[in-house]
Amino acid sequence: MSRIAYVNGRYLPHRAARVHIEDRGYQFADGIYEVIAVVNRRLLDGEPHFDRLEHSLAAVRIAAPMSRPALTAVAAETIRRNRVDEGFLYLQVTRGVAPREHAFPAAATPSLVMTARARRFGHDPEALTGGSAVTTRDIRWERCDIKSVALLPNVLAKQQAVEAGAHETLMVDDDGFVTEGSSANAWILDREGRVITRGADHAILNGITRQSLIRLARAAGIAVEERPFTVAEAKAAREAFITSTSQWVKPITEIDGTVIGNGAPGETARRLFALYLTHARTACPA
Amino acid sequence: MSRIAYVNGRYLPHRAARVHIEDRGYQFADGIYEVIAVVNRRLLDGEPHFDRLEHSLAAVRIAAPMSRPALTAVAAETIRRNRVDEGFLYLQVTRGVAPREHAFPAAATPSLVMTARARRFGHDPEALTGGSAVTTRDIRWERCDIKSVALLPNVLAKQQAVEAGAHETLMVDDDGFVTEGSSANAWILDREGRVITRGADHAILNGITRQSLIRLARAAGIAVEERPFTVAEAKAAREAFITSTSQWVKPITEIDGTVIGNGAPGETARRLFALYLTHARTACPA
Repeated sequence: MSRIAYVNGRYLPHRAARVHIEDRGYQFADGIYEVIAVVNRRLLDGEPHFDRLEHSLAAVRIAAPMSRPALTAVAAETIRRNRVDEGFLYLQVTRGVAPREHAFPAAATPSLVMTARARRFGHDPEALTGGSAVTTRDIRWERCDIKSVALLPNVLAKQQAVEAGAHETLMVDDDGFVTEGSSANAWILDREGRVITRGADHAILNGITRQSLIRLARAAGIAVEERPFTVAEAKAAREAFITSTSQWVKPITEIDGTVIGNGAPGETARRLFALYLTHARTACPA
Repeated sequence: MSRIAYVNGRYLPHRAARVHIEDRGYQFADGIYEVIAVVNRRLLDGEPHFDRLEHSLAAVRIAAPMSRPALTAVAAETIRRNRVDEGFLYLQVTRGVAPREHAFPAAATPSLVMTARARRFGHDPEALTGGSAVTTRDIRWERCDIKSVALLPNVLAKQQAVEAGAHETLMVDDDGFVTEGSSANAWILDREGRVITRGADHAILNGITRQSLIRLARAAGIAVEERPFTVAEAKAAREAFITSTSQWVKPITEIDGTVIGNGAPGETARRLFALYLTHARTACPA
């Protein structure tokens, strides 16, 4: 079955899904995106993702391309047409097509693209595998809370991991604190058994998976502290892990060559993964 | 006559010029661009623009889409088909089309888009008009020397100018020094008669117009100092101006409400404009 993409009002064969060369997303990275997990053909945490989409759009003052119910309907149709039972919905909104000038065009209709692709998430906390991380200076702009498509620095950071044979690159601010991964939030479990993740400031993308996990952890009696931590703290931690829409919870078992804890996925990461799995199954019943 | 765009090997009607939704330029701002002035149907300073293109591509490790002679030939053909006597050539190279993953795709062919549009440059230094500027914190990433399409912060900066009724926004680093405009380099003439512009560090795009003007000024006996200057210095300057491929030399006669010099375009800006005009006519004879 061939994939179908939604592009500005039409459902097109994926290979024929195109946007104009003067779409401001292409020329200026003047756009916002979301990636939403699909479980049992439903959007997982769709509402908070749409909330964040609205936050990002408002921050760069791009009008919503359609109402939330309409977006939800297009998402459902895109999932249906691609027969995605489990996987992702990708959604991108740009300021639209206009002759190339930096300032906002007087009249442009926001562009909307949606795609969906199948991918199985892990369903067994015990099968969770660890990955290693490298670190690099965070050289991104100062509004990483906006989920914009200006992802070139993230691309370069992720590529550093790949070339080091690592899973992810943790970015580090000028004060030595970890901000986040190239496409995931960073967490540790310290020696005192506290779960720590950076607060949602302008230096990180406030992950929806991050937000859900903070809530789920606290509801399960796990204390979560939102504060920055250093690379040294992470290396000395009992556990380290990252969270994202695509990975849920991924243990980081080595940072810049230093083994974290006993080098195996930790109990807390497994427990959070299990909590998230239950959340996903509850929110998105078969 | 309808406009023609070059897109990955084909010359297409502008309205039909499209790229795939999974072009990494659209999803990741994973691309580089150049804008080159066209004078008498020729590229003005084409070689240094292609040098910078190579610098930017190398910095993000995108392969050149074709050899420089081939790029030059496509540029000439794009100019010819659009019958641009005077104006701009826009050129964009991205890492190509690939399923969405942050890391570099194993195999992707770089995308190449070129467009040309007519625009008359000013040809009379005496007719040069001034514009006002506002200032804002420079919140961009730390590799502004790379001419990438991740321009969202520049878009937002330029929009600030527009909404303040100003011509340009000057961006200011954490130490209070002006970096550059949203799409132009910034210069002043201080009280001692020295022309000052920030050195080509990672915080600015090393403008080709900037480079040419430094050379032309020095050859004409005008001293140019490459060092950062503060907003206070700019406000107290005898003259302020910006330079870019699209504006050549544009006097800035007011910054954040403070009138610069006597509020009129200055002699040095006019002189530099005249030098640049001569350079353009010499380099691109009719």
